Amino acid sequence: MKKILVLGAGLSTISLIDYLLKNAEENQWQLTLGDIDKELAIKKVNGSPYGRAITFDVTDEQNTLKVISDHDVVISMLPAFMHMKVITKCIELKKPMLTASYATPEVKALNEEAKTAGIPIMMELGVDPGIDHMSAMNVINRIREEGGKLKSFYSFTGGLVAPEYDNNPWNYKFTWNPRNVVLAGNGVSKFINNGRYKYIPYHRLFDRVLKRKILNYGDFEVYANRDSLSYREIYGLEDIPSMYRGTIRRPGFSKAWNVFVRLGATDDDYIIEDSENMTYRQFINSFLRYDPEMPVEIKLKLYCVNSCDPEVFKKLEWLGIFDKRKIGLKRATPAQVLLKLLLGKWAMDPDDRDMLIMQHEFKYEVGNEEKMIVSAMAFEGENQEKTAMAITVGLPLAITTKLFLQGKIKRTGIVLPITEDIYKPVLDELKTFGISFDEKEYMMG
Amino acid sequence: MKKILVLGAGLSTISLIDYLLKNAEENQWQLTLGDIDKELAIKKVNGSPYGRAITFDVTDEQNTLKVISDHDVVISMLPAFMHMKVITKCIELKKPMLTASYATPEVKALNEEAKTAGIPIMMELGVDPGIDHMSAMNVINRIREEGGKLKSFYSFTGGLVAPEYDNNPWNYKFTWNPRNVVLAGNGVSKFINNGRYKYIPYHRLFDRVLKRKILNYGDFEVYANRDSLSYREIYGLEDIPSMYRGTIRRPGFSKAWNVFVRLGATDDDYIIEDSENMTYRQFINSFLRYDPEMPVEIKLKLYCVNSCDPEVFKKLEWLGIFDKRKIGLKRATPAQVLLKLLLGKWAMDPDDRDMLIMQHEFKYEVGNEEKMIVSAMAFEGENQEKTAMAITVGLPLAITTKLFLQGKIKRTGIVLPITEDIYKPVLDELKTFGISFDEKEYMMG
Repeated sequence: MKKILVLGAGLSTISLIDYLLKNAEENQWQLTLGDIDKELAIKKVNGSPYGRAITFDVTDEQNTLKVISDHDVVISMLPAFMHMKVITKCIELKKPMLTASYATPEVKALNEEAKTAGIPIMMELGVDPGIDHMSAMNVINRIREEGGKLKSFYSFTGGLVAPEYDNNPWNYKFTWNPRNVVLAGNGVSKFINNGRYKYIPYHRLFDRVLKRKILNYGDFEVYANRDSLSYREIYGLEDIPSMYRGTIRRPGFSKAWNVFVRLGATDDDYIIEDSENMTYRQFINSFLRYDPEMPVEIKLKLYCVNSCDPEVFKKLEWLGIFDKRKIGLKRATPAQVLLKLLLGKWAMDPDDRDMLIMQHEFKYEVGNEEKMIVSAMAFEGENQEKTAMAITVGLPLAITTKLFLQGKIKRTGIVLPITEDIYKPVLDELKTFGISFDEKEYMMG
Repeated sequence: MKKILVLGAGLSTISLIDYLLKNAEENQWQLTLGDIDKELAIKKVNGSPYGRAITFDVTDEQNTLKVISDHDVVISMLPAFMHMKVITKCIELKKPMLTASYATPEVKALNEEAKTAGIPIMMELGVDPGIDHMSAMNVINRIREEGGKLKSFYSFTGGLVAPEYDNNPWNYKFTWNPRNVVLAGNGVSKFINNGRYKYIPYHRLFDRVLKRKILNYGDFEVYANRDSLSYREIYGLEDIPSMYRGTIRRPGFSKAWNVFVRLGATDDDYIIEDSENMTYRQFINSFLRYDPEMPVEIKLKLYCVNSCDPEVFKKLEWLGIFDKRKIGLKRATPAQVLLKLLLGKWAMDPDDRDMLIMQHEFKYEVGNEEKMIVSAMAFEGENQEKTAMAITVGLPLAITTKLFLQGKIKRTGIVLPITEDIYKPVLDELKTFGISFDEKEYMMG
C-alpha cells in the first residue's frame, strides 16, 4: 500500500480527491485528507474505504512532521503562503511532494537540497500554472525537433462563465477568487515584442488589449499579465524576440473595467473616509471633481472622454454604480467597496457553469518558411462544485501523482511539468476527461 | 552657559548654525555640531569660539546617550528616519528636542512620555511643515477671534527657481531633493471639497491642477498633495467643508510632467531590463506599443492624445527624451532613469537662486458676510548654499530654539508651532529676515 497525504480540503480539491479515491483500489493507495476543519475533510472523503480524514494544522510543527513521516507522498492544497512549511519538512523527511502552486524563488532555492534528499518537489501542476506549461512545452519541443526556431510565443488563459450562462452586459462572472479579479494587473506588466522590452503601467493596461479569435470559440480580448518575461527561462526561450502572456475576457470587458481603474476605484492601499455611510454614487463621485451643477453621470462621462461610450455606460449602470444604496462597509478601501458591489452582480447563479479557455500562438522559422501554430482548448465545468477551475487544477495534479507513484516519473529537485516524461502522459490522460487542445498550423506572409 | 547640540551638518543646516553662532555671545550659548563626517561639522562651525565639532553616529547608542546628556537642548537635523532614536533618548534623559521633521504617528504616541519627562519635543519647525503651520494658524486664530467660521482653507507651497534664473521651457529646476520631485504624488491624493471627500489617483493627479494667481507674484498652477485631510486635526478644523493642500509649479509644468506619469516613467517599483545599454529613446519606447512603422515621437503623441500639444512636446524634446544617448545605469527603475535624465537638465547653475513661494486662501463667514483672506509669501535664496529652502527650514527652527532657551516657550509633550506663544514671535522675527506674508481681504459673491 502507498500512502498519500493530501493537505487542505478546500474548494479546488474535489476532482483531485475523486480521482485519487477512484484509482485507489487498482493502485493500492491509501489516502489521508487533512484539513484544519476535519468535518470538511470527512465530507470530501465521503465514506471511501480508501480514505480517512484527519485534523491538520500546519502551524503545529511537531504534528506536521509526524503526519508527513507516516506517508509516502504529500500533495499540498494549502494556501500558497503555507507551502514553505510543508516543503522544508518534506525535504527533511525525504518525502516527495506535489502542488499546483507557483515555484517561488524561495522554493527554487531548495533545488539542491531536494536533489540531495533524492525526492522531487513538483510544483505548478494545476492550471495557469500547470496545463499551460505542459501544452506549451508539448508544441515548443515539437517545433524544436522539426528544426524550427521560435520567433514569438503568445499565451492566453481566462476563467469565464460558460456561453450558455453568459447573461449580463459584462459577459463576465466571478469563477475564481473575486478579490484577485478586482486587483488584477495592479503593478506593471512586462513583456517583449520583437526584441523590445515593453512595460505597461497599470492605469493603461486595460487600454492596450489584444483582440483575439480563440480557435473554434469565437472572439475575445486579452490584457497582458504582469510578468511575461520570467517565462522565457522556464521554457528555455531566453532569446525569443516576442513573449507575451495574457488574460482572456469577452470583448468590451476591458474598456468598461478601465473606467474603474482610471477612477482609482481598484486601489487597495488606503481607507475611504466614512465608507460605511457612503452610497455607491458618492463612492464614484469621490473620484470626480466637485461640481454642484453637474450630475455624477455627466462628470463620469467627462472624466473618461474617449472611453465612456454607450456600451461602457450600460455596463456601469447595470452594476448600480450610481445607486444611492449605502455601501455599509466599515473602513473599506476602494477595492473592497468595488468588490462588494461586484459580488452582488457577478456571482455565479446556482445552475451556472464556468469555463476555462486557453490559447497558445507560436510563430517560428523552419528552413525558409515562417509558420504559425495555434493551440487552444476550452473546458466547461460540470456544476458549481466541479467547476472547470477545480477540475483543471485537480486532475493534472492527481494524474502526475499517479504517474509518480507508478514509477513513471524519476526526477529529483524542484520540478516543473515542462519535460516530455511528465507532460506527455498527463496531457494524454487529460484528453480522456475532455481537456484537449485543438491545433491549427498556418503559413505566414 | 546653555549647551546646544545640533545633530547633522548637512545641506539645510547652514542658516540654523549661522543664526545660533551669531546669537551665541549675547545669549551665552555653547554649540556642539555633531556629524558622522567630522570635517563637514568643522567646516560649518567655521572657527567660531562658541562652536565645536564632534563625530556623531546615531547608531552608537552609548555615545549618543552620553553626548545628549552633556547638553541642555538637542536640535536634530538628521534624516527623518533617524529621529526616533534621538527622541526616545531625549525623553529618557529629559532633554528638550527640536526638529523640522514631521511628527509621525509614532512620534505623537510619545506625547504623554514627553510630558511626564517635563520636556517639549518640538516638531515641524522648518517649512512645509513649519512656516506654513505658523502663518496659517496666525490667520485662522484671527478669524476665530473675529467670530468667523471657516468654510474653506486652501494652502499651497512650492520650491522653484527664482524668476531671474528661470530659463528653461519647464520653468523648473531642482531646488530640493530631486528624487522626491520625480516620485511626488505617487499614491493617492486626498482632500475634501464642500463636504465631499475627494480622491485623485496618481495617474490623474497632474491632470487636475488648479490655476492660481499668487498674490503679487503672478500665475502658477497647483497639484494636490497626498494627504490634505490630516491637517484638519492639526489646525483644529475637523468640521471644515473644504480643505486642500497643494504644490506650486509654473503654468504648463504639470501637463508636460503628466506625460511621464502616464507613460509609467516615474515608477520606482521594478527594474528595467538591460537599462545600462538602453538609450533614452528606447526607454521612452519601452512604454509605447511596438510598431516598426512609426517613430517614437509619433507614437508618444498618439499615446498622450489631448495632452501632448506643441508646448508639451517642446518641453519633452528639450529634455532629450528622444536622444540615442545610452542611459548607462545598471539595474535602474524607470524613476531612476528619469531622474538621471532630469539631473542633467534641471540642475541649478552655480549662480542660480531658488525661491520658496507659499499661499493660503481662507474663506469664512462672519455675520451675514462671506469673506476671503489670501496670505502669501515668496522668498528668494541668496546663493547655492544659502538657498531659500535652507534658510526657511533653518531660521524658524533656530528662532524657536532661542525662544525656548530664553524661557519664552513653556510647553511639554509633542509640540507643533500652532499656538500663538510660538508662531507670533517666530513670524515677527522671520520678517526681519525678509520672510513675510502679504495679506489681502476680499468680500465674496
